[in-house]
Amino acid sequence: MTAGTGTAVGVDIGGTKVAGGLVTGEGVVLRTARRVTPSGSPTETEAAIVAVVEELAGAADGPLAGVGVGAAGWFDRTGDTVLFSPHLAWRNTSLRQDLARRLDLPLWVGNDADAAAWAEYRFGAARGAELALAITLGTGIGGGIVLGGRLMRGAHGVAGEWGHMRVVPDGRLCACGNRGCWEQYASGTALAQAAREVAASSPAAAGRLLERVSGRADALTGEDVAHVAAAGDALARELIAEVGHWLGQGIADLAAVLDPDVVVIGGGVSALGEAVLGPARERLHRTLPGRGFRPGPEVVVAALGPQAGLVGAADLVRQPTAG
Amino acid sequence: MTAGTGTAVGVDIGGTKVAGGLVTGEGVVLRTARRVTPSGSPTETEAAIVAVVEELAGAADGPLAGVGVGAAGWFDRTGDTVLFSPHLAWRNTSLRQDLARRLDLPLWVGNDADAAAWAEYRFGAARGAELALAITLGTGIGGGIVLGGRLMRGAHGVAGEWGHMRVVPDGRLCACGNRGCWEQYASGTALAQAAREVAASSPAAAGRLLERVSGRADALTGEDVAHVAAAGDALARELIAEVGHWLGQGIADLAAVLDPDVVVIGGGVSALGEAVLGPARERLHRTLPGRGFRPGPEVVVAALGPQAGLVGAADLVRQPTAG
Repeated sequence: MTAGTGTAVGVDIGGTKVAGGLVTGEGVVLRTARRVTPSGSPTETEAAIVAVVEELAGAADGPLAGVGVGAAGWFDRTGDTVLFSPHLAWRNTSLRQDLARRLDLPLWVGNDADAAAWAEYRFGAARGAELALAITLGTGIGGGIVLGGRLMRGAHGVAGEWGHMRVVPDGRLCACGNRGCWEQYASGTALAQAAREVAASSPAAAGRLLERVSGRADALTGEDVAHVAAAGDALARELIAEVGHWLGQGIADLAAVLDPDVVVIGGGVSALGEAVLGPARERLHRTLPGRGFRPGPEVVVAALGPQAGLVGAADLVRQPTAG
Repeated sequence: MTAGTGTAVGVDIGGTKVAGGLVTGEGVVLRTARRVTPSGSPTETEAAIVAVVEELAGAADGPLAGVGVGAAGWFDRTGDTVLFSPHLAWRNTSLRQDLARRLDLPLWVGNDADAAAWAEYRFGAARGAELALAITLGTGIGGGIVLGGRLMRGAHGVAGEWGHMRVVPDGRLCACGNRGCWEQYASGTALAQAAREVAASSPAAAGRLLERVSGRADALTGEDVAHVAAAGDALARELIAEVGHWLGQGIADLAAVLDPDVVVIGGGVSALGEAVLGPARERLHRTLPGRGFRPGPEVVVAALGPQAGLVGAADLVRQPTAG
C-alpha cells in the first residue's frame, strides 16, 4: 500500500452508505472504506465521513492532498451548503464548514453526480470530450456536465438536475412534488414500478417475474427484472427496453438544449448494458432534432462503475478551478 | 452620421427579410437597411446580404471593424457552414466562405438567436449574468446561451435548440419531423393555431376573434389574438396565458438542466409583455424543481427588441473569443 504525492481521499455519500477511497493522482483506487449512512442525522453522517477519512488517511504512506466529498444532494455554488437532499437529512447544512472544523485538509464538497461526471471525464468514458454529460441512473437520475475541462454547475450550483425535466404532462408523481419527471420513466425505480404494475395487472404474462418474488408483485425490484431478462424472459426484456426508450428520448431533449459530444450512462441501471443502451440509442437516432443535418452525441456506458463518485471527488480537490 | 472606431455592420437574416444595421461599439444602431429575403435561392440571399452591407458601409464615416451575420439556421461549430435552416434554402452551405469572397472584412457568421442572446448579455436585459439564456418566441423558438461571458454553442455548434425539446409525447407535429416539440405550444405559431382551433370549434365564444378576420377562423394570426386581447376579450387573454404557461414549464425544465440566473424572453411574442410573462413566471414558480430550497432564474423581457440579432452579430465580430 503506497500512496504517492497527490493521493487524496474521495468520499461518496449515498442514501445507505458512506463509501471512501484512497485515490492516486491517476485515478487509481488503492484502498476503500465504508460505513452505514445514519440518514436521520446530519451530525452522525459527518462523523461517519470523518471516520472513513481517518481510516484511509491512516493507511496512506504520506500526507494527503486533500479530501473530496460527493453527496446525493443539491449544493450551492460555492459548495459550502447542501441546499436540499431527497434521500439525506440535510437542509441548508453548511457541510463544508462542519467538515473543515474536523479535517485539517483541503476540501472539495459537492454533488455526487458532478463528481462522477468529472471522474469519467478525467479517467473514464468521456476523456477528451469538449462537452460531456454524465447521466447516473439509480433510484432517480443524477447528472453532471463537464464543459471545456471544467465542471459546469450553473448560476446557483444546481445544473444537471435533468431527472426533473417534465417529460409527461400530468404524468407519474415524483418525490420532488411535480408530475411527469424524467426519472419517473428512466431509472431503477421506474423499472421496478413498471414491473410491479404489469405483474399486478397481467400475472399470467408476468409468470417468471412473479416466480422470483414468490408471487408478491409489489416486492419486485429492478434487479429482479434484470435477472429474469438475463434468463431470456421477453416481458422483462421489454420492460428494460421501455426504460431505454425513455432514456433515449431524454438524451435527444438534452442534445437539443446542450449539444454534447459524449453522454456517459452510469449508475446501477447502466449495468444492464446494451439491453438498455441499445433501445436508448435507437430512440435517440430516430428523434434527435435536426438528425441528418447535424452530428449527435455518442452514448457510452460509464467506465468507472460505482467508484466514479469517490474517484471524481478525490480528483476535484486537486483541481483549483474545476468547480 | 458618425461611425467611430469599432463600428461594425450587423445583419439579421430571417425568413422574409435581410435586416442590417451600422452598430457602434456601444451597441447603438446608427442606421439601418433592409432587403426582401429571396428564400428560394442561397445565392440571391448572399447577394442581398452584400447589398445591405455595401449600403451601410457607404454611409459609415470610416472603415468598418467587420461584418456579423446572424441567420435563422443551425451552424456548425466553426460558423463556416449552415447545416440546416427550416425557413431558408440553405443546406450544408459554406456561408462564411461565400461571404468572405465578396466582403473583404472580418466576419462573424452564426445563429440569429445566439446573436440576440449575445446582444442582451452585452447591452440589454442580461448584462452581468453568469449564465443567461435567451428565448426568442416567434414562428418557432430560438435560443442562445451566454456562460461566463462567452457564447456556449455546444460540441457541434447547435446548442440552445430547445424549441425541439419534446414536452408532450405524441403531441402536435413539428416541422422538424418530431411530435410534441416545445415550440408547438409556446410560440406565435402556437398562439395562432390555438386561436384557429377554438374559433372553429366554438364560434360563439370566439366572436370577437372571428369578427377580426371576417369569420374566417383559419386566417387568425398571433397578432389578431394580441389585438383582441388588448381590447379586453377574455378568451384571447386565456389563449395568451396558455402560451405563457407552456413557456414557464419549459423554463422550469431548462432551469433543471442548466440553472441559469437570467432568462430573457425576446421575439415577436415578447411584445405581449406581462400577458404572457405573468403566466410564465407563475408556472415557473409553481414547478421549478427544488423550489423553496434553491434560487430560480429571473425571467425578463428582452431590452433590444427586433434589433437584438443585428446588434449582437455586429458585436460578435469584435470579440475574438466569444464564440
